[in-house]
Amino acid sequence: MATINENFLKLQVGYLFPEISRRIRSFQAQNPDAKIISLGIGDVTQPLAPAIVEAMKKAVVNMGSEATFRGYGPEQGYDFLIDAIIENDFDSRGIDLDSSEIFVSDGAKCDTGNIQEIFGIDNVIAVTDPVYPVYVDTNVMAGRTGQANKNSQYSRIVYMPCTAENNFIPDLPETAVDIIYLCFPNNPTGAVATKEILSRWVNFARNNKAIILFDAAYEAFIADRQIPHSIYEVEGAKEVAIEFRSFSKTAGFTGVRCAFTIVPEQLQAYTKDGRLVKVSSLWHRRHCTKFNGASYISQAGAAAVYTTEGKKQCRQIIDIYMTNAALIRESLTKLGYDVYGGVNAPYIWMKTPDGLSSWDFFDHLLQKANVVGTPGSGFGPAGEGYFRLTAFAKPDDVREAMQRFAAI
Amino acid sequence: MATINENFLKLQVGYLFPEISRRIRSFQAQNPDAKIISLGIGDVTQPLAPAIVEAMKKAVVNMGSEATFRGYGPEQGYDFLIDAIIENDFDSRGIDLDSSEIFVSDGAKCDTGNIQEIFGIDNVIAVTDPVYPVYVDTNVMAGRTGQANKNSQYSRIVYMPCTAENNFIPDLPETAVDIIYLCFPNNPTGAVATKEILSRWVNFARNNKAIILFDAAYEAFIADRQIPHSIYEVEGAKEVAIEFRSFSKTAGFTGVRCAFTIVPEQLQAYTKDGRLVKVSSLWHRRHCTKFNGASYISQAGAAAVYTTEGKKQCRQIIDIYMTNAALIRESLTKLGYDVYGGVNAPYIWMKTPDGLSSWDFFDHLLQKANVVGTPGSGFGPAGEGYFRLTAFAKPDDVREAMQRFAAI
Repeated sequence: MATINENFLKLQVGYLFPEISRRIRSFQAQNPDAKIISLGIGDVTQPLAPAIVEAMKKAVVNMGSEATFRGYGPEQGYDFLIDAIIENDFDSRGIDLDSSEIFVSDGAKCDTGNIQEIFGIDNVIAVTDPVYPVYVDTNVMAGRTGQANKNSQYSRIVYMPCTAENNFIPDLPETAVDIIYLCFPNNPTGAVATKEILSRWVNFARNNKAIILFDAAYEAFIADRQIPHSIYEVEGAKEVAIEFRSFSKTAGFTGVRCAFTIVPEQLQAYTKDGRLVKVSSLWHRRHCTKFNGASYISQAGAAAVYTTEGKKQCRQIIDIYMTNAALIRESLTKLGYDVYGGVNAPYIWMKTPDGLSSWDFFDHLLQKANVVGTPGSGFGPAGEGYFRLTAFAKPDDVREAMQRFAAI
Repeated sequence: MATINENFLKLQVGYLFPEISRRIRSFQAQNPDAKIISLGIGDVTQPLAPAIVEAMKKAVVNMGSEATFRGYGPEQGYDFLIDAIIENDFDSRGIDLDSSEIFVSDGAKCDTGNIQEIFGIDNVIAVTDPVYPVYVDTNVMAGRTGQANKNSQYSRIVYMPCTAENNFIPDLPETAVDIIYLCFPNNPTGAVATKEILSRWVNFARNNKAIILFDAAYEAFIADRQIPHSIYEVEGAKEVAIEFRSFSKTAGFTGVRCAFTIVPEQLQAYTKDGRLVKVSSLWHRRHCTKFNGASYISQAGAAAVYTTEGKKQCRQIIDIYMTNAALIRESLTKLGYDVYGGVNAPYIWMKTPDGLSSWDFFDHLLQKANVVGTPGSGFGPAGEGYFRLTAFAKPDDVREAMQRFAAI
């Protein structure tokens, strides 16, 4: 008798985005002339940089010719991309990485979701609240949690609240944890971590034999030169941290699909009887057994991100989004809202006014300004009373949205 | 203390292909002038069809323009591709599928590797011997097996030998099994299953509340009109089978990455206490949580496979490979070898001569003919005394290899 993985039944219904869609549809049906602007969208809107388009066109043409056709590539990714990554993203910041430590993939969602497979089922994981749901849901599926409570929080997960009171930086856990998910610049709060904060986490992991899963998908949005782009800028981090990177937001690859994960050679974890095992060997085995490499065309496009032209063009696109972010931040601050993030991150996290709940503010904004955002409570109970706006919309829409905010 | 998934430690070292490489390197070092021809390669060598190249070029250009840029696509795949799949691969064969039953992905290796996640850990799986190692290794990693024995076979897996004695069609298991992996046309044996054979398996699954995971990655190579391309050509199969398809060998997408999996709405599996759960809901949840859609460019290319030009061009490429297969088959038969497969499959499975072991024949062929194949024993103990040749090399190389075979 074929049985299912019953851990899937513990998963809470994906409520947030379907409910947002439902409320928008309902409003639009009653107000067919309203022009709704979405600042809730987590997807990019600017087209790919010309250097990337050219590189991918060339890659496609190569695939049509016998002499330059490429079949299966190396599962870990092509050297031409790995070398560019190491030189531009790490060497330049004083981080020494070997090509064996880079694993190119088709997305950071896949990588942050799949990474837990190589760890034992008894590890206690810690996540921030609010949090990107993939970290949690993939551990639920694997059986690393118990049931959810009425706040949709699962037993056996340690949640670390992030609110204005702690500047959206989680406190160190007071109970034992084994695997810690951190995301800086943060989705959804837009918070960033200084070197000192990251050092505190690295030391905690070292002292507690824990591993940090560091999601750096938004590092390209860091403007402040003091803020680390990689956790490996912190001494000793290679012994305790895996880092996730993505071209999705850096270069508009949400539809192209390319990302990479760094698993340092020094990183080790334990067997139950206390022997040390190299984590990169496990991830390598997982990668080669369940994955067949990212598309050659996507990798060729990703390599173009690191060319002189590619860097300049991608920078211009990021500047468009960060100009959006600055406009949102400044407009809302001027209007008297409490606003966080949006300086080194494409996410603006605002306190709802007048003690409104996240969903009440959602409805208010939709009805009065025809603007859509994302209720903070959808990312976890500590997000209640907050609201997320993103900088990824088109500049004209952002300007219009801010005028409407001013009018309500 | 972060602990590892100790099931990974049960995995046998990936011995086959590294060992082949080692022996080739060693031979080449001693014989620097030898021109080695590989018929061991499981990768395609013909370039992409022009219709696919054109479609992908257009897709890349679209990504560079604001009006036609595409970010995140639907996780299950774009309708333009799903509709083309249903119409061409299934409607045309009398199989009625809904778009919700098709899950587009970046590869059949990923899908056949990931599918086990949605099933309980206590299911007993059955695989053929010889077998594509991904089916086995992914279940080992998940903890569905015990340790391996000296033949690299794991306890708690039911192995079904396929040899010349049973025409490489496995007998129905005599002990209880819950999940059965079948691959037709088969890698490595090149065997195909008639409708009658598939019916027997579907009935077995229905009677035993088992689920069949049917790998049809090589269906495009079926020449015989009587052989089903899909397991759903068999009455009742939708209630017991998941099918995997790929553009890798059909259209040369090994470097482009696009595949799809069919999970019928009717397919159900059990909770431990006997309740029925829809399997497609579980796979949908898995797909949306751990995957972010296949590249838009790859999907645009895959859709071109179904255009009038695309079909004709892909057919011509497959004909090149099948002409290779026929030449290998006929040449070796004429030389007195016992040869199987290669008629409806790109794989030729031969008996080694004079009772040689698979590896001894490998060495013999390498030294005397400078031709490389794959030792059958590498796919499982029932493959001992067999040898795999593939039809994916370039035609000139195949001709040359056959002349050398004749000379040894």
